[in-house]
Amino acid sequence: MSARPPAADAGLAQVLATLQGRSAASLNDLLAFAAIPSVSAQAAHAPDVRRAADWLAARLRQAGLAAVEQWPTAGHPAVYAEWLGAPGAPTLLVYGHYDVQPPDPEDRWRTPPFTPTVQGERVYGRGVSDDKGPLLIAVQVADAYLSALGRLPVNVKFLFEGEEEVGSAHLPALVAARRGRLQADFVLSADGGMWSAETPSLTVSARGLAALEFTVRGPAKDLHSGRHGGSLHNPLHAIAALVASLHAADGRVAVDGFYDGVSDRTPAERQAIRALPFTDAAYLEQTGAPATYGEAGYSTLERQWTRPTLELNGLWGGYAGEGSKTVLPGEAHAKITCRLVPGQDPARMPALIEAHLRRHLPPGVTLEVRAGAHGARAYELPAAHPGRRVARQVLETVYGRAPLEVGMGGSIPVLETFSELLGVDTVFFSFAVGDEDIHAPNEFFRLARLGEGQEAWARYWAALAADAGPGGQP
Amino acid sequence: MSARPPAADAGLAQVLATLQGRSAASLNDLLAFAAIPSVSAQAAHAPDVRRAADWLAARLRQAGLAAVEQWPTAGHPAVYAEWLGAPGAPTLLVYGHYDVQPPDPEDRWRTPPFTPTVQGERVYGRGVSDDKGPLLIAVQVADAYLSALGRLPVNVKFLFEGEEEVGSAHLPALVAARRGRLQADFVLSADGGMWSAETPSLTVSARGLAALEFTVRGPAKDLHSGRHGGSLHNPLHAIAALVASLHAADGRVAVDGFYDGVSDRTPAERQAIRALPFTDAAYLEQTGAPATYGEAGYSTLERQWTRPTLELNGLWGGYAGEGSKTVLPGEAHAKITCRLVPGQDPARMPALIEAHLRRHLPPGVTLEVRAGAHGARAYELPAAHPGRRVARQVLETVYGRAPLEVGMGGSIPVLETFSELLGVDTVFFSFAVGDEDIHAPNEFFRLARLGEGQEAWARYWAALAADAGPGGQP
Repeated sequence: MSARPPAADAGLAQVLATLQGRSAASLNDLLAFAAIPSVSAQAAHAPDVRRAADWLAARLRQAGLAAVEQWPTAGHPAVYAEWLGAPGAPTLLVYGHYDVQPPDPEDRWRTPPFTPTVQGERVYGRGVSDDKGPLLIAVQVADAYLSALGRLPVNVKFLFEGEEEVGSAHLPALVAARRGRLQADFVLSADGGMWSAETPSLTVSARGLAALEFTVRGPAKDLHSGRHGGSLHNPLHAIAALVASLHAADGRVAVDGFYDGVSDRTPAERQAIRALPFTDAAYLEQTGAPATYGEAGYSTLERQWTRPTLELNGLWGGYAGEGSKTVLPGEAHAKITCRLVPGQDPARMPALIEAHLRRHLPPGVTLEVRAGAHGARAYELPAAHPGRRVARQVLETVYGRAPLEVGMGGSIPVLETFSELLGVDTVFFSFAVGDEDIHAPNEFFRLARLGEGQEAWARYWAALAADAGPGGQP
Repeated sequence: MSARPPAADAGLAQVLATLQGRSAASLNDLLAFAAIPSVSAQAAHAPDVRRAADWLAARLRQAGLAAVEQWPTAGHPAVYAEWLGAPGAPTLLVYGHYDVQPPDPEDRWRTPPFTPTVQGERVYGRGVSDDKGPLLIAVQVADAYLSALGRLPVNVKFLFEGEEEVGSAHLPALVAARRGRLQADFVLSADGGMWSAETPSLTVSARGLAALEFTVRGPAKDLHSGRHGGSLHNPLHAIAALVASLHAADGRVAVDGFYDGVSDRTPAERQAIRALPFTDAAYLEQTGAPATYGEAGYSTLERQWTRPTLELNGLWGGYAGEGSKTVLPGEAHAKITCRLVPGQDPARMPALIEAHLRRHLPPGVTLEVRAGAHGARAYELPAAHPGRRVARQVLETVYGRAPLEVGMGGSIPVLETFSELLGVDTVFFSFAVGDEDIHAPNEFFRLARLGEGQEAWARYWAALAADAGPGGQP
């Protein structure tokens, strides 16, 4: 960090020096935290999720935060902590999540998913990028402030949930019940992700989410495909036809009503996206896909940030093992998630898709549709928001250039929770990078981002206090 | 068996009495044999397959067959035994298989698949009906003849293979190499199945088989479906569209060239099939399917016996676990088997299907096709064959009514092997019944069929010797 501008005030300089001195300890924090397999989607890992919550609460106490609590939910608990010793200064609600995605398919990992492993300039392990590394940055910065200066420049409340990877189903009830404790000027999110490791970016929009699963059933049990094949509908044929019917040849979603309320961005917004340093060729090299593909008439980034999608996340039935099994299976299954843009209502999507599936259901099979976990609306951060202004300034200081303002293809369901229940906006300030294989085997986090993120978070709190003026609101 | 006609000769009466006296021991044979998980498709079960071969060889020796051998192949061994002490009498090659289907999905079994369990008038377990029960009948009948009379009425060679459930890939080479030892007048197959438990039937045709698998690949690794969804082709969408393209709306296979060489049965043959005691309503009740479905213009039995099919046996990709995982998977997979009728060449099918898939492959994904194990041509037993005549006569004696002559939707690849390499026909004489959930959870075999099958096999050998005349060929 030596090439960057010195801290404007001596206190901040002390904090940055403290963080630099603790870089090895910071990494050790992450190795210990990511070794806990807090897979929220799988019931067998419930004790591990609890263990991760305990570990995080202990780490917050160790940072010097006196009020550290675990808040139970109907699912996994949230971990809460606060420091409110700056009366009149802005109050931030720092958000993150300590649960992680399932490691499947485990045989594709080059190192064990829950034995975080440093290789070169990276650490590999499930959850290191999403979201344990970025979350720890905020905790470590609070720790450095409190040990170097005995105080933070702003008031900070930490809320770390354990169900983000399963749709944050119980968070709305928790936030509603704790509304008073959680009051803040805005949310600063440690979850999210940056454009690239080289170019700082600020995420100012996110797509929403809706989920459902369905099952197609034919015969009451698996049958011999020789004996019965050709005389009963095969659920695998039926589900393939149903899934194929969900998209038109031009890549658009073929579900009636799916695009209701969706409008194109303005020509200026579309031009801004086109001006970003992005090429399909580099994107294909990064992903290894043979070609881009999607809705006709839009660029790759427009497809990712500004257009809604309907994606199969799983499709299965029959025999998937070694060799051959001549079976006509009794049922077939599919999991779907939709990514939504402003104007779409997540609550409406499962019914629209179910109506489509029922209209296209062939004879000889039956259909069962199950709505998935709580959805989320799409989100956009107002351009003039002070949290956005300070973020731009800090990123320019840390990285030496103005950040790109980008969209986010993914969803953070809690955005809607904070907006609706607390009436506040959310600023994404994560130091994960989009290529770190989150939700896939060999997830990694760049070691350099720990230090960069710590500096940025330390500067952000100081700058926000300065921006708000002595004792003022931002 | 007391209500049935007495045996025409005293020797046969002695054999039948011996079998009746051994009914408990016969069941115990099956319980022991079916407890060995000889799953030929799964490499982990290779030692069990060997154990089943050893068990069967020991049982043949115990029956009094002096020449008992295990014949190695490039895969699982075949078990061979012979009794050739009736010079001038016909020689039968008895065929069966001691390998079984995988038990998947195991969680659907009400009793453990490899703990054969008697419940009421049935025994439940993987392989009890396909083919360990029917196979043991032949061995037990030889045992009874040898212990009661010291001889068999005909010469018998037993060939039990261990790879029927994986397509009998190595049997052709084995039969070619052992051609001299295996010479016989015809094959009497313990594999196959009857129409129903109440109505005796004789299977006089079988569909052929061709198999292939394919994989659709998109990105080089699993990606986050929020971040990347809508901008890369999802292999699950692509494979669904490919699978859906394989059939037309009228139920016909849409692959160019698939029906080349296929002709309709004669009006008389179609009328004979329509005259069989079969209703769609009873069939739906038996299978639990909501409706029949298939190629337009044909009845259910015509679809099963006389029309070729293309069936998915497995289709999978992405996340199939508990909860939600927002993944855009890197690949998706499908397994296909075709059932063939006279006129179709199994060797040609994988190439026809691959050409179809390549022609329909959307952009943004790649395709890999792998031909499956050795296929099989469709088969028909000549109407005037002596083995067919004797079978009709014996079944009428045992069941008190003439058997129905029926087709078989499934395939026995060895039919072609015996026809091409030994120049002989095959008579199906299995006492399995079509509703016994072979290839599915809770496979069972009717206890009564053990005794009925033993009586029928004992009578068959005696009748065949009588039919052939003193010292004559059939």
